[in-house]
Amino acid sequence: MTTVNAYAATEKNGKLAAFEYQLGELDAHDVDIAVEHCGICHSDLSMLENAWGMTTYPFVPGHEVVGTVAAMGTRVRDLAVGDRVGLGWHSGYCMTCDQCMGGDHNMCGTAGMTIVARHGGFSDRVRAQDASVMKLPEGLDAAAAGPLLCAGITVFNPLVQFDVPPTAHVGVIGIGGLGHLAVQFARAWGCHVTAITSRDSKRQEALDLGAHETIVSRNAEEVAAAAGRFDLLLSTVNVKLDWDAFMTTLKPRGRLHVLGAILEPLDLNSMPMLFGQHSVSGSPVGSPATIRKMLEFAARHGINPMTEHFPLSQVNEALDHLRAGKARFRIVLDV
Amino acid sequence: MTTVNAYAATEKNGKLAAFEYQLGELDAHDVDIAVEHCGICHSDLSMLENAWGMTTYPFVPGHEVVGTVAAMGTRVRDLAVGDRVGLGWHSGYCMTCDQCMGGDHNMCGTAGMTIVARHGGFSDRVRAQDASVMKLPEGLDAAAAGPLLCAGITVFNPLVQFDVPPTAHVGVIGIGGLGHLAVQFARAWGCHVTAITSRDSKRQEALDLGAHETIVSRNAEEVAAAAGRFDLLLSTVNVKLDWDAFMTTLKPRGRLHVLGAILEPLDLNSMPMLFGQHSVSGSPVGSPATIRKMLEFAARHGINPMTEHFPLSQVNEALDHLRAGKARFRIVLDV
Repeated sequence: MTTVNAYAATEKNGKLAAFEYQLGELDAHDVDIAVEHCGICHSDLSMLENAWGMTTYPFVPGHEVVGTVAAMGTRVRDLAVGDRVGLGWHSGYCMTCDQCMGGDHNMCGTAGMTIVARHGGFSDRVRAQDASVMKLPEGLDAAAAGPLLCAGITVFNPLVQFDVPPTAHVGVIGIGGLGHLAVQFARAWGCHVTAITSRDSKRQEALDLGAHETIVSRNAEEVAAAAGRFDLLLSTVNVKLDWDAFMTTLKPRGRLHVLGAILEPLDLNSMPMLFGQHSVSGSPVGSPATIRKMLEFAARHGINPMTEHFPLSQVNEALDHLRAGKARFRIVLDV
Repeated sequence: MTTVNAYAATEKNGKLAAFEYQLGELDAHDVDIAVEHCGICHSDLSMLENAWGMTTYPFVPGHEVVGTVAAMGTRVRDLAVGDRVGLGWHSGYCMTCDQCMGGDHNMCGTAGMTIVARHGGFSDRVRAQDASVMKLPEGLDAAAAGPLLCAGITVFNPLVQFDVPPTAHVGVIGIGGLGHLAVQFARAWGCHVTAITSRDSKRQEALDLGAHETIVSRNAEEVAAAAGRFDLLLSTVNVKLDWDAFMTTLKPRGRLHVLGAILEPLDLNSMPMLFGQHSVSGSPVGSPATIRKMLEFAARHGINPMTEHFPLSQVNEALDHLRAGKARFRIVLDV
């Protein structure tokens, strides 16, 4: 039995407080991670407020984990105690369904989720299945890497899924936790990158991240002037926008790809979609194979989340900072 | 000067009446087709009632033309006087834009349209640019082939555009002019085909066309039972359906592809789209290269539109038959 020292909320939207729980015997494919750092994602807030109706309390958030392998089961290959590893949204997969067998583990219907019905990474230790525990390549800054495991793979995944060529013109809607990584990945991918933000004040930050140009989304003239420009629009926001206006900025064959959790329906006019052979789509984080590619690509290109750090003991202050929209661009808790 | 004997409406929704007009000198890339047969498409009705605000009167409908080359300009290659040819929605392309240069002539921003600002195929002769005039392969039934040039290419195009594999499970929503061809093409493509119709009475017809099974869309239980079944859903209807219900019938990575002109927004819930990496898309007819593939594929597999024939002189009766929803499945006018 291993005692875990975590921070948990005992009720919806409750403050987090120190919380101990026990881990039992390791299963053959289990890996225990000694947590060093854990990013905070908007999904942690959504889960804390039970926005998706699947939170159980006590609730330990945290699914952008970086640490070292502390212990592992008898069937674990490719990892060794002491390896520096990362863990993201998914904590395990069935490994037998069509999706798992086809390399689409992230669409496994019974995939485990790191903070759903189990305890996450705001903690000194977290357990997960070996297939979900990713060895970090040399050259990544471990203290900053956590957000790559959820925000990073979320924005990187469509570049792989849709074979986006480096000749593409990519627009990134929303320059926050996800968007600031999308700009960096798309730039390193070789694409022409336009950052689309609601705030004029973020233009320079977006250019510094690697955007070739910027559009302020509240300026209808700037959006209209971008007609027919993008092969791929990555939307990282979680609010309803004027989707039809953004659809006009697509080239023929262009795609609007939605990565943020938007609760209102996408009220799309199908006629321009038909004339332009446009697609609208979404995707959930990425498969283990894609996460490996993403980590290697990030290390090679020096892509790092821009992070602000709080000690784990100040987790409530950190959550307030995120709620206030002040994070630039991602908060990491240091254990 | 060539005198053309056509049928035209002189006002919105007007009856068609005999109408003569003159064709001037042939341009270098012009082809004159002596019309033998012309299909009637719902778009002809939409144009007749100026539903899209781009109709000019006198209006000569008809963009599913089959005939023979009667005359051609000095720069026309690959065609000869007397060749049996077809002409569809597009009557010409700029041949210089990125879309034309990239093989996507059907998305050329200045493509000519056979019945927009020019006179169509309800006529003894029609003129079009050589790139839009398709030589019919041996083995096609010329009297029935007209609907392939618009309805046929519209439903065939997504199979090519999205590299649909023969292992795919395809659902066809709406078994009418487009849908009855979609079922035949998807079946010949090697796919598992489910016909989805609003009417129980069409089940047997759909099976006879090659569907492996049927779903009646008004039966919510049948739709629910198809959860996670389709790689590709081809919607050929022009009315709003419960799109979210149909999205649940997609497999992970599945696509809902909209081919009918639907005026109401697609009010899609983005969250299941995100979890399933689903796409929603549309496309407009097809490029000349894809039309050639479609014609050759139809000839090889014996795919024929099921047609009812009216003489051109009874065009008004034919239009009434279509308006009444009685066409099984496509009407062709014989000149």
